[in-house]
Amino acid sequence: MPLNLDAVGSTSEPTERSWTSTDCLLYALGVGAGTLDATGFELEFTTENSAEVSQKVLPTLAAVVGAGGTPRSSLGRFDPAMLVHAEQSIELFGAIPTDATITTTSTLTAIYDKGSGALVRSQAKSVDAASGQPVFSTGTGLFIRGEGGFGGDRGPSAEKEPFPSRAPDEVVTYTTRPDQALLYRLSGDRNPLHSDPTFAKRAGFDRPILHGLCTYGFVGRALLHALCGSEPARLRSMYGRFSRPTYPGDTLTISMWVDGSRARFHTDNQRGERVIDAGTCEFS
Amino acid sequence: MPLNLDAVGSTSEPTERSWTSTDCLLYALGVGAGTLDATGFELEFTTENSAEVSQKVLPTLAAVVGAGGTPRSSLGRFDPAMLVHAEQSIELFGAIPTDATITTTSTLTAIYDKGSGALVRSQAKSVDAASGQPVFSTGTGLFIRGEGGFGGDRGPSAEKEPFPSRAPDEVVTYTTRPDQALLYRLSGDRNPLHSDPTFAKRAGFDRPILHGLCTYGFVGRALLHALCGSEPARLRSMYGRFSRPTYPGDTLTISMWVDGSRARFHTDNQRGERVIDAGTCEFS
Repeated sequence: MPLNLDAVGSTSEPTERSWTSTDCLLYALGVGAGTLDATGFELEFTTENSAEVSQKVLPTLAAVVGAGGTPRSSLGRFDPAMLVHAEQSIELFGAIPTDATITTTSTLTAIYDKGSGALVRSQAKSVDAASGQPVFSTGTGLFIRGEGGFGGDRGPSAEKEPFPSRAPDEVVTYTTRPDQALLYRLSGDRNPLHSDPTFAKRAGFDRPILHGLCTYGFVGRALLHALCGSEPARLRSMYGRFSRPTYPGDTLTISMWVDGSRARFHTDNQRGERVIDAGTCEFS
Repeated sequence: MPLNLDAVGSTSEPTERSWTSTDCLLYALGVGAGTLDATGFELEFTTENSAEVSQKVLPTLAAVVGAGGTPRSSLGRFDPAMLVHAEQSIELFGAIPTDATITTTSTLTAIYDKGSGALVRSQAKSVDAASGQPVFSTGTGLFIRGEGGFGGDRGPSAEKEPFPSRAPDEVVTYTTRPDQALLYRLSGDRNPLHSDPTFAKRAGFDRPILHGLCTYGFVGRALLHALCGSEPARLRSMYGRFSRPTYPGDTLTISMWVDGSRARFHTDNQRGERVIDAGTCEFS
């Protein structure tokens, strides 16, 4: 059954979501914070009670807690095993609080026909539930394999602006763990594609793949530490396209080119394959 | 101010505690389940939705959720930085459910004067809050440095029954992570002795030490896999004495001697130092 193209333009009912300090700690560990490396234990992100450290929240949490309310059900029926995360953006209006309740409204903005599948884009705005003040906005692109070929618009072709030919201004390398997804999934996305070998095989993968948003969180940490002096309030926006799955245990090398308050970046795995492409971020 | 010796014999008010499937998954990851090694991803303990796998609960969770209600406050005032976990036992009456609410009653059974400190022992019984059926019992020994020398009973001397001279019947080696305590602490014990270098130094340690109950959980996994065919319902009891701190990142080698349905064990670190001594367990 093809996707319901009439869903484009539909807006979800506002959904409310809360998180706590503990949720933020769990998320931070899930995206690799605290792993002993050049950045140490990142105690401001991984603990709430260390001396002379105030707990801070990784900006990429927005992509997790701000995704609620995507009117995905209005798309019609499709095999969830065929869904992969294709692109993700976040726009921040300040540091994310350690405890909050937000209201999120999501609009399905496009369904593109990419031939081998459909690209479904949505934009969500999250405001503080009490004050109505914007907290962050997110944009999500989902690729549903096998749902293309319906004769629809291909959408704008991916911007192919090449990366600068000079060496990157910043390079950060993080290694994910073989069991990374087992921890990351406790932040909410329990899709067994990321944990169950049987399910992953049915979906056409040799073994479970890492959540796209987990890779995104690793990359966000790299941008935060390399470009923003580890200060979440300095990261204004981040966009990336998931061009290839990351497998738990893979090493991620994030290369950044800075131009004033803007940077472009990509992420390669240990085999030199591009896993996040066309990355951009803004910071202050 | 010395400890209040009159606290011996006092019983806590019953306290209620609940846990969920997610709490069990988080605990399992906190004690190293899912780390890729000889036992694989331990999906029955680390996921709730894998094909042909039913979620199970690590028996050592009893030591965490069954500890509520220890009438520690009746002991009087002491510096919590001086408290270390000295010994722990659990007695199980079947597999621990993935979701439950229990009622726990704890009795302070002894305060021994060990010279350099006081050993405070308590016993707790946990029953299902709805049915009143026993779920598990736990015994805890806390050593409070600097609170000895009050002229009290030294208590029974540690049983010095030597381990058999033959090679161990089972040996399991697990490596903890440098950031192990950051994850384990999300199961409830936020004592900064385990995460904050500043606090750890004040308590007289070069760096944060691992929670005793985290080490205990690693050891319990080893017993479970080596002696009980990974079947929680087969583990009946477990006792161990914490003889030396484990540091996050340490390797734990658990050596077991089996005699019928009973085993004795100890745990050494990578320097050959004994970290858990006088271990016993019963299984079926």
